[in-house]
Amino acid sequence: MTITITAFERSPDGGKGLARDTRVRWALEEVGQPYEVRLVSFRAMKEPAHLALHPFGQIPTYEEGDLALFETGAIVFHIAERHAGLLPVDANARARAITWMFAAVNTIEPPILELGTAKLLEGDKPWNKARLPLVEERIRNRLAQLSTRLGDADWLDGAFSAGDLMMVSVLLRLKSSGILDEYPNLAAYVARGESRPSYKRAFDAQLAVYTGKPPTG
Amino acid sequence: MTITITAFERSPDGGKGLARDTRVRWALEEVGQPYEVRLVSFRAMKEPAHLALHPFGQIPTYEEGDLALFETGAIVFHIAERHAGLLPVDANARARAITWMFAAVNTIEPPILELGTAKLLEGDKPWNKARLPLVEERIRNRLAQLSTRLGDADWLDGAFSAGDLMMVSVLLRLKSSGILDEYPNLAAYVARGESRPSYKRAFDAQLAVYTGKPPTG
Repeated sequence: MTITITAFERSPDGGKGLARDTRVRWALEEVGQPYEVRLVSFRAMKEPAHLALHPFGQIPTYEEGDLALFETGAIVFHIAERHAGLLPVDANARARAITWMFAAVNTIEPPILELGTAKLLEGDKPWNKARLPLVEERIRNRLAQLSTRLGDADWLDGAFSAGDLMMVSVLLRLKSSGILDEYPNLAAYVARGESRPSYKRAFDAQLAVYTGKPPTG
Repeated sequence: MTITITAFERSPDGGKGLARDTRVRWALEEVGQPYEVRLVSFRAMKEPAHLALHPFGQIPTYEEGDLALFETGAIVFHIAERHAGLLPVDANARARAITWMFAAVNTIEPPILELGTAKLLEGDKPWNKARLPLVEERIRNRLAQLSTRLGDADWLDGAFSAGDLMMVSVLLRLKSSGILDEYPNLAAYVARGESRPSYKRAFDAQLAVYTGKPPTG
Protein backbone atom coordinates (compact mmCIF):
# COMPACT_ATOMS: atom_id res chain seq x y z
CA MET A 1 0.00 0.00 0.00
CA THR A 2 1.26 3.44 -0.87
CA ILE A 3 2.30 5.66 2.01
CA THR A 4 1.42 9.33 1.50
CA ILE A 5 2.54 12.08 3.84
CA THR A 6 1.82 15.80 3.75
CA ALA A 7 4.37 18.61 3.92
CA PHE A 8 4.36 22.40 3.61
CA GLU A 9 4.04 23.74 0.10
CA ARG A 10 6.39 26.45 1.36
CA SER A 11 8.14 25.58 4.61
CA PRO A 12 8.45 28.57 6.98
CA ASP A 13 12.07 27.62 7.62
CA GLY A 14 12.98 27.81 3.94
CA GLY A 15 14.19 24.21 3.76
CA LYS A 16 16.33 24.00 6.90
CA GLY A 17 14.67 20.69 7.66
CA LEU A 18 12.94 21.86 10.84
CA ALA A 19 9.38 21.27 9.61
CA ARG A 20 8.09 18.09 11.12
CA ASP A 21 7.70 16.18 7.88
CA THR A 22 11.49 15.75 8.04
CA ARG A 23 11.08 13.52 11.10
CA VAL A 24 8.62 11.28 9.24
CA ARG A 25 10.74 11.25 6.06
CA TRP A 26 13.74 10.27 8.17
CA ALA A 27 11.87 7.39 9.81
CA LEU A 28 10.67 6.12 6.43
CA GLU A 29 14.22 6.30 5.06
CA GLU A 30 15.61 4.41 8.06
CA VAL A 31 13.24 1.50 7.47
CA GLY A 32 13.52 1.69 3.68
CA GLN A 33 9.89 2.45 2.88
CA PRO A 34 9.10 4.54 -0.21
CA TYR A 35 6.53 7.29 0.22
CA GLU A 36 4.70 9.96 -1.68
CA VAL A 37 4.28 13.56 -0.60
CA ARG A 38 1.28 15.79 -0.99
CA LEU A 39 2.17 19.45 -0.52
CA VAL A 40 -0.32 21.62 1.36
CA SER A 41 -0.59 25.42 1.33
CA PHE A 42 -1.15 27.40 4.54
CA ARG A 43 -4.68 28.14 3.38
CA ALA A 44 -5.50 24.52 2.54
CA MET A 45 -4.21 23.41 5.96
CA LYS A 46 -7.10 25.23 7.61
CA GLU A 47 -9.78 23.91 5.25
CA PRO A 48 -12.18 21.04 6.04
CA ALA A 49 -10.48 18.44 3.82
CA HIS A 50 -7.18 18.78 5.66
CA LEU A 51 -8.77 19.30 9.08
CA ALA A 52 -10.51 15.95 8.61
CA LEU A 53 -7.03 14.42 8.46
CA HIS A 54 -5.38 16.68 11.02
CA PRO A 55 -7.67 18.32 13.59
CA PHE A 56 -5.01 20.92 14.46
CA GLY A 57 -4.48 21.99 10.85
CA GLN A 58 -0.82 21.10 10.66
CA ILE A 59 1.55 18.86 8.77
CA PRO A 60 2.61 16.07 8.54
CA THR A 61 -0.17 13.56 8.14
CA TYR A 62 0.24 9.91 7.16
CA GLU A 63 -2.10 7.90 4.94
CA GLU A 64 -1.77 4.24 4.11
CA GLY A 65 -4.83 2.44 2.77
CA ASP A 66 -7.64 2.93 5.29
CA LEU A 67 -5.35 4.36 7.94
CA ALA A 68 -4.96 8.12 8.47
CA LEU A 69 -2.73 9.45 11.23
CA PHE A 70 -1.49 12.82 12.38
CA GLU A 71 0.99 13.87 15.10
CA THR A 72 4.63 13.29 14.24
CA GLY A 73 5.55 11.20 17.27
CA ALA A 74 2.66 8.83 16.60
CA ILE A 75 3.52 8.53 12.91
CA VAL A 76 7.17 7.79 13.66
CA PHE A 77 6.09 5.21 16.23
CA HIS A 78 3.70 3.61 13.75
CA ILE A 79 6.49 3.29 11.19
CA ALA A 80 8.89 1.97 13.84
CA GLU A 81 6.39 -0.61 15.03
CA ARG A 82 5.61 -1.98 11.57
CA HIS A 83 9.10 -2.10 10.05
CA ALA A 84 12.43 -3.30 11.42
CA GLY A 85 15.20 -0.79 12.10
CA LEU A 86 13.89 1.75 14.60
CA LEU A 87 12.97 -0.27 17.71
CA PRO A 88 14.96 -3.00 19.48
CA VAL A 89 13.54 -6.53 19.45
CA ASP A 90 14.17 -7.06 23.17
CA ALA A 91 10.98 -6.04 25.01
CA ASN A 92 12.65 -4.00 27.76
CA ALA A 93 15.00 -2.21 25.36
CA ARG A 94 11.99 -1.46 23.14
CA ALA A 95 10.09 0.08 26.07
CA ARG A 96 13.12 2.24 26.90
CA ALA A 97 13.43 3.43 23.28
CA ILE A 98 9.76 4.46 23.38
CA THR A 99 10.51 6.27 26.63
CA TRP A 100 13.03 8.44 24.81
CA MET A 101 10.45 9.22 22.12
CA PHE A 102 8.11 10.61 24.78
CA ALA A 103 10.98 12.34 26.61
CA ALA A 104 11.89 14.11 23.36
CA VAL A 105 8.41 15.54 22.81
CA ASN A 106 7.21 16.02 26.37
CA THR A 107 10.33 16.91 28.39
CA ILE A 108 12.90 18.37 25.99
CA GLU A 109 10.72 19.94 23.30
CA PRO A 110 8.33 22.10 25.41
CA PRO A 111 10.96 24.64 26.54
CA ILE A 112 12.41 24.64 23.01
CA LEU A 113 8.95 25.36 21.59
CA GLU A 114 8.64 28.14 24.16
CA LEU A 115 11.83 29.72 22.83
CA GLY A 116 10.47 29.55 19.29
CA THR A 117 7.21 31.12 20.42
CA ALA A 118 9.07 33.88 22.27
CA LYS A 119 11.04 34.75 19.15
CA LEU A 120 8.27 34.35 16.57
CA LEU A 121 5.17 35.57 18.40
CA GLU A 122 6.57 37.82 21.11
CA GLY A 123 9.64 39.21 19.38
CA ASP A 124 8.07 42.65 19.19
CA LYS A 125 6.94 42.73 22.83
CA PRO A 126 8.66 45.09 25.29
CA TRP A 127 9.49 42.20 27.63
CA ASN A 128 11.13 39.97 25.07
CA LYS A 129 14.75 40.96 25.65
CA ALA A 130 14.50 40.56 29.43
CA ARG A 131 12.52 37.34 29.20
CA LEU A 132 14.54 35.36 26.63
CA PRO A 133 17.37 34.51 29.06
CA LEU A 134 14.83 32.93 31.42
CA VAL A 135 13.46 30.73 28.65
CA GLU A 136 16.97 29.78 27.55
CA GLU A 137 17.86 28.88 31.13
CA ARG A 138 14.96 26.45 31.27
CA ILE A 139 16.29 24.80 28.12
CA ARG A 140 19.78 24.61 29.63
CA ASN A 141 18.43 22.87 32.73
CA ARG A 142 17.05 20.09 30.56
CA LEU A 143 20.07 19.90 28.25
CA ALA A 144 22.45 19.60 31.20
CA GLN A 145 20.49 16.60 32.46
CA LEU A 146 20.32 15.05 29.02
CA SER A 147 24.04 15.64 28.49
CA THR A 148 24.82 13.89 31.78
CA ARG A 149 22.69 10.90 30.84
CA LEU A 150 24.16 10.59 27.34
CA GLY A 151 27.74 10.81 28.63
CA ASP A 152 30.13 9.52 25.99
CA ALA A 153 27.66 7.09 24.42
CA ASP A 154 26.78 7.33 20.75
CA TRP A 155 23.02 7.00 21.31
CA LEU A 156 20.69 7.30 24.29
CA ASP A 157 20.20 3.59 24.95
CA GLY A 158 22.27 1.12 22.95
CA ALA A 159 21.79 1.18 19.19
CA PHE A 160 20.19 4.07 17.28
CA SER A 161 16.40 3.98 17.71
CA ALA A 162 13.24 5.97 17.11
CA GLY A 163 14.01 7.60 20.46
CA ASP A 164 17.23 9.03 19.04
CA LEU A 165 15.49 10.02 15.81
CA MET A 166 12.99 12.07 17.79
CA MET A 167 15.54 13.51 20.23
CA VAL A 168 17.99 14.57 17.51
CA SER A 169 15.09 16.15 15.58
CA VAL A 170 13.99 18.13 18.64
CA LEU A 171 17.55 19.28 19.42
CA LEU A 172 18.09 20.37 15.81
CA ARG A 173 15.68 23.22 16.50
CA LEU A 174 18.29 24.72 18.80
CA LYS A 175 21.05 24.86 16.22
CA SER A 176 20.67 28.52 15.32
CA SER A 177 20.49 29.56 19.00
CA GLY A 178 24.03 28.42 19.80
CA ILE A 179 22.81 26.79 23.04
CA LEU A 180 23.51 23.30 21.77
CA ASP A 181 27.22 24.07 21.43
CA GLU A 182 27.43 24.61 25.18
CA TYR A 183 27.01 20.83 25.50
CA PRO A 184 29.66 19.30 23.23
CA ASN A 185 28.44 15.73 23.64
CA LEU A 186 24.91 16.78 22.64
CA ALA A 187 26.21 18.75 19.66
CA ALA A 188 28.18 15.66 18.59
CA TYR A 189 25.09 13.50 19.14
CA VAL A 190 23.05 15.72 16.83
CA ALA A 191 25.85 15.74 14.24
CA ARG A 192 25.93 11.94 14.44
CA GLY A 193 22.23 11.87 13.63
CA GLU A 194 22.62 14.32 10.77
CA SER A 195 25.41 12.25 9.25
CA ARG A 196 23.23 9.15 8.88
CA PRO A 197 22.53 8.48 5.19
CA SER A 198 18.80 8.19 5.96
CA TYR A 199 18.74 11.64 7.54
CA LYS A 200 20.60 13.10 4.58
CA ARG A 201 18.11 11.61 2.13
CA ALA A 202 15.21 12.98 4.20
CA PHE A 203 16.84 16.39 4.43
CA ASP A 204 17.55 16.54 0.70
CA ALA A 205 13.98 15.51 -0.12
CA GLN A 206 12.43 18.28 2.01
CA LEU A 207 14.94 20.80 0.63
CA ALA A 208 14.03 19.86 -2.93
CA VAL A 209 10.45 21.03 -2.25
CA TYR A 210 11.82 24.45 -1.47
CA THR A 211 14.43 24.73 -4.19
CA GLY A 212 12.29 23.01 -6.80
CA LYS A 213 15.24 20.79 -7.65
CA PRO A 214 14.80 17.05 -7.21
CA PRO A 215 17.30 15.48 -4.77
CA THR A 216 20.40 14.03 -6.41
CA GLY A 217 22.21 10.79 -5.65
CA MET B 1 6.25 -9.20 39.21
CA THR B 2 5.57 -6.28 41.50
CA ILE B 3 5.07 -2.90 39.84
CA THR B 4 6.56 -0.01 41.80
CA ILE B 5 6.04 3.61 40.85
CA THR B 6 7.40 6.76 42.45
CA ALA B 7 5.40 9.80 43.57
CA PHE B 8 6.08 13.04 45.42
CA GLU B 9 6.50 12.73 49.17
CA ARG B 10 4.69 16.09 49.27
CA SER B 11 2.95 16.96 46.02
CA PRO B 12 3.26 20.67 45.11
CA ASP B 13 -0.46 20.75 44.27
CA GLY B 14 -1.47 19.56 47.73
CA GLY B 15 -3.26 16.47 46.45
CA LYS B 16 -5.30 17.97 43.59
CA GLY B 17 -4.22 15.03 41.44
CA LEU B 18 -2.18 17.10 38.98
CA ALA B 19 1.15 15.43 39.71
CA ARG B 20 1.92 12.98 36.96
CA ASP B 21 1.85 9.87 39.09
CA THR B 22 -1.96 10.22 38.92
CA ARG B 23 -1.82 9.41 35.18
CA VAL B 24 0.11 6.22 35.85
CA ARG B 25 -2.08 5.25 38.80
CA TRP B 26 -5.14 5.79 36.60
CA ALA B 27 -3.75 3.57 33.84
CA LEU B 28 -2.92 0.82 36.33
CA GLU B 29 -6.43 1.04 37.80
CA GLU B 30 -8.02 0.85 34.34
CA VAL B 31 -6.22 -2.41 33.57
CA GLY B 32 -6.62 -3.78 37.09
CA GLN B 33 -2.94 -4.06 38.00
CA PRO B 34 -1.92 -3.62 41.64
CA TYR B 35 1.11 -1.44 42.31
CA GLU B 36 3.31 -0.18 45.07
CA VAL B 37 4.40 3.40 45.56
CA ARG B 38 7.75 4.70 46.74
CA LEU B 39 7.55 8.31 47.87
CA VAL B 40 10.45 10.59 46.98
CA SER B 41 11.39 13.91 48.56
CA PHE B 42 12.40 16.92 46.47
CA ARG B 43 15.95 16.47 47.70
CA ALA B 44 16.09 12.75 46.91
CA MET B 45 14.75 13.41 43.40
CA LYS B 46 17.99 15.21 42.54
CA GLU B 47 20.29 12.56 44.04
CA PRO B 48 22.17 9.92 42.02
CA ALA B 49 19.96 6.97 43.02
CA HIS B 50 16.84 8.63 41.62
CA LEU B 51 18.63 10.22 38.66
CA ALA B 52 19.72 6.73 37.61
CA LEU B 53 16.02 5.92 37.26
CA HIS B 54 14.90 9.30 35.93
CA PRO B 55 17.55 11.43 34.19
CA PHE B 56 15.43 14.58 34.60
CA GLY B 57 14.96 14.12 38.35
CA GLN B 58 11.19 13.90 38.30
CA ILE B 59 8.39 11.52 39.16
CA PRO B 60 6.84 9.14 38.24
CA THR B 61 9.12 6.24 37.47
CA TYR B 62 8.04 2.64 36.85
CA GLU B 63 9.89 -0.47 37.95
CA GLU B 64 8.89 -4.04 37.19
CA GLY B 65 11.53 -6.74 37.54
CA ASP B 66 14.48 -5.76 35.34
CA LEU B 67 12.58 -2.97 33.61
CA ALA B 68 12.88 0.67 34.72
CA LEU B 69 11.01 3.40 32.85
CA PHE B 70 10.45 7.13 33.26
CA GLU B 71 8.31 9.61 31.29
CA THR B 72 4.59 9.39 31.99
CA GLY B 73 3.43 8.93 28.41
CA ALA B 74 5.82 6.03 27.90
CA ILE B 75 4.79 4.39 31.17
CA VAL B 76 1.09 4.69 30.32
CA PHE B 77 1.80 3.26 26.88
CA HIS B 78 3.77 0.38 28.37
CA ILE B 79 0.87 -0.47 30.67
CA ALA B 80 -1.62 -0.12 27.80
CA GLU B 81 0.42 -2.37 25.55
CA ARG B 82 0.81 -5.16 28.10
CA HIS B 83 -2.71 -5.29 29.55
CA ALA B 84 -6.15 -5.19 27.96
CA GLY B 85 -8.39 -2.17 28.48
CA LEU B 86 -6.56 0.89 27.22
CA LEU B 87 -5.90 0.23 23.52
CA PRO B 88 -8.26 -1.13 20.84
CA VAL B 89 -7.49 -4.54 19.36
CA ASP B 90 -8.05 -3.35 15.76
CA ALA B 91 -4.66 -2.24 14.40
CA ASN B 92 -5.82 1.02 12.83
CA ALA B 93 -7.91 2.04 15.84
CA ARG B 94 -4.91 1.24 18.05
CA ALA B 95 -2.66 3.50 15.95
CA ARG B 96 -5.22 6.30 16.23
CA ALA B 97 -5.45 5.92 20.02
CA ILE B 98 -1.66 6.23 20.21
CA THR B 99 -1.94 9.34 18.03
CA TRP B 100 -4.11 10.96 20.70
CA MET B 101 -1.53 10.07 23.36
CA PHE B 102 1.10 12.00 21.43
CA ALA B 103 -1.34 14.81 20.60
CA ALA B 104 -2.04 15.20 24.32
CA VAL B 105 1.61 15.62 25.29
CA ASN B 106 3.03 17.33 22.20
CA THR B 107 0.18 19.53 20.86
CA ILE B 108 -2.18 20.28 23.76
CA GLU B 109 0.15 20.16 26.76
CA PRO B 110 2.95 22.55 25.65
CA PRO B 111 0.85 25.76 25.79
CA ILE B 112 -0.71 24.54 29.05
CA LEU B 113 2.76 23.98 30.50
CA GLU B 114 3.66 27.48 29.33
CA LEU B 115 0.74 28.91 31.31
CA GLY B 116 1.91 27.02 34.39
CA THR B 117 5.44 28.32 33.90
CA ALA B 118 4.17 31.88 33.44
CA LYS B 119 2.27 31.72 36.71
CA LEU B 120 4.82 29.79 38.77
CA LEU B 121 8.16 31.09 37.51
CA GLU B 122 7.29 34.48 36.03
CA GLY B 123 4.43 35.53 38.31
CA ASP B 124 6.58 38.25 39.85
CA LYS B 125 7.85 39.63 36.54
CA PRO B 126 6.69 43.06 35.35
CA TRP B 127 5.43 41.61 32.05
CA ASN B 128 3.34 38.86 33.50
CA LYS B 129 -0.04 40.62 33.53
CA ALA B 130 0.28 41.79 29.93
CA ARG B 131 1.65 38.46 28.73
CA LEU B 132 -0.77 35.99 30.32
CA PRO B 133 -3.62 36.76 27.86
CA LEU B 134 -1.31 35.86 24.95
CA VAL B 135 -0.46 32.51 26.51
CA GLU B 136 -4.12 31.83 27.25
CA GLU B 137 -5.03 32.66 23.66
CA ARG B 138 -2.59 30.05 22.40
CA ILE B 139 -4.31 27.50 24.63
CA ARG B 140 -7.73 28.59 23.32
CA ASN B 141 -6.58 28.08 19.73
CA ARG B 142 -5.81 24.46 20.49
CA LEU B 143 -8.89 23.85 22.62
CA ALA B 144 -11.18 25.23 19.91
CA GLN B 145 -9.73 22.74 17.43
CA LEU B 146 -9.95 19.89 19.91
CA SER B 147 -13.53 20.85 20.78
CA THR B 148 -14.49 20.80 17.09
CA ARG B 149 -12.97 17.37 16.62
CA LEU B 150 -14.59 15.89 19.73
CA GLY B 151 -18.03 17.25 18.80
CA ASP B 152 -20.70 15.42 20.76
CA ALA B 153 -18.76 12.17 21.06
CA ASP B 154 -17.98 10.70 24.47
CA TRP B 155 -14.34 9.98 23.68
CA LEU B 156 -11.88 11.07 21.00
CA ASP B 157 -12.04 7.95 18.83
CA GLY B 158 -14.57 5.27 19.70
CA ALA B 159 -14.22 3.67 23.12
CA PHE B 160 -12.22 5.18 26.00
CA SER B 161 -8.50 4.62 25.41
CA ALA B 162 -5.06 5.57 26.68
CA GLY B 163 -5.41 8.57 24.32
CA ASP B 164 -8.37 9.82 26.35
CA LEU B 165 -6.60 9.05 29.61
CA MET B 166 -3.70 11.27 28.57
CA MET B 167 -5.86 14.01 27.06
CA VAL B 168 -8.18 14.26 30.08
CA SER B 169 -5.13 14.34 32.36
CA VAL B 170 -3.58 17.18 30.37
CA LEU B 171 -6.84 19.18 30.29
CA LEU B 172 -7.32 18.73 34.04
CA ARG B 173 -4.42 21.13 34.52
CA LEU B 174 -6.65 23.90 33.15
CA LYS B 175 -9.43 23.44 35.66
CA SER B 176 -8.45 26.25 37.98
CA SER B 177 -7.95 28.68 35.07
CA GLY B 178 -11.61 28.64 34.00
CA ILE B 179 -10.57 28.31 30.34
CA LEU B 180 -11.92 24.79 30.08
CA ASP B 181 -15.45 26.00 30.84
CA GLU B 182 -15.42 28.08 27.66
CA TYR B 183 -15.64 24.76 25.78
CA PRO B 184 -18.61 22.92 27.31
CA ASN B 185 -18.02 19.69 25.40
CA LEU B 186 -14.41 19.59 26.61
CA ALA B 187 -15.46 20.34 30.19
CA ALA B 188 -17.99 17.48 29.95
CA TYR B 189 -15.31 15.23 28.44
CA VAL B 190 -12.99 15.89 31.36
CA ALA B 191 -15.84 15.33 33.84
CA ARG B 192 -16.59 12.05 32.08
CA GLY B 193 -12.99 10.99 32.64
CA GLU B 194 -13.04 12.05 36.28
CA SER B 195 -16.22 10.06 36.91
CA ARG B 196 -14.64 6.77 35.87
CA PRO B 197 -14.21 4.51 38.91
CA SER B 198 -10.56 3.92 37.96
CA TYR B 199 -9.84 7.64 37.94
CA LYS B 200 -11.51 8.03 41.33
CA ARG B 201 -9.42 5.25 42.83
CA ALA B 202 -6.25 6.82 41.39
CA PHE B 203 -7.24 10.24 42.68
CA ASP B 204 -8.05 8.95 46.15
CA ALA B 205 -4.76 7.06 46.31
CA GLN B 206 -2.67 10.13 45.48
CA LEU B 207 -4.73 12.26 47.88
CA ALA B 208 -4.13 9.78 50.68
CA VAL B 209 -0.39 10.45 50.41
CA TYR B 210 -1.09 14.07 51.20
CA THR B 211 -3.72 13.67 53.90
CA GLY B 212 -2.02 10.66 55.46
CA LYS B 213 -5.35 8.84 55.41
CA PRO B 214 -5.59 5.60 53.43
CA PRO B 215 -8.23 5.68 50.67
CA THR B 216 -11.60 4.25 51.66
CA GLY B 217 -13.87 1.98 49.62
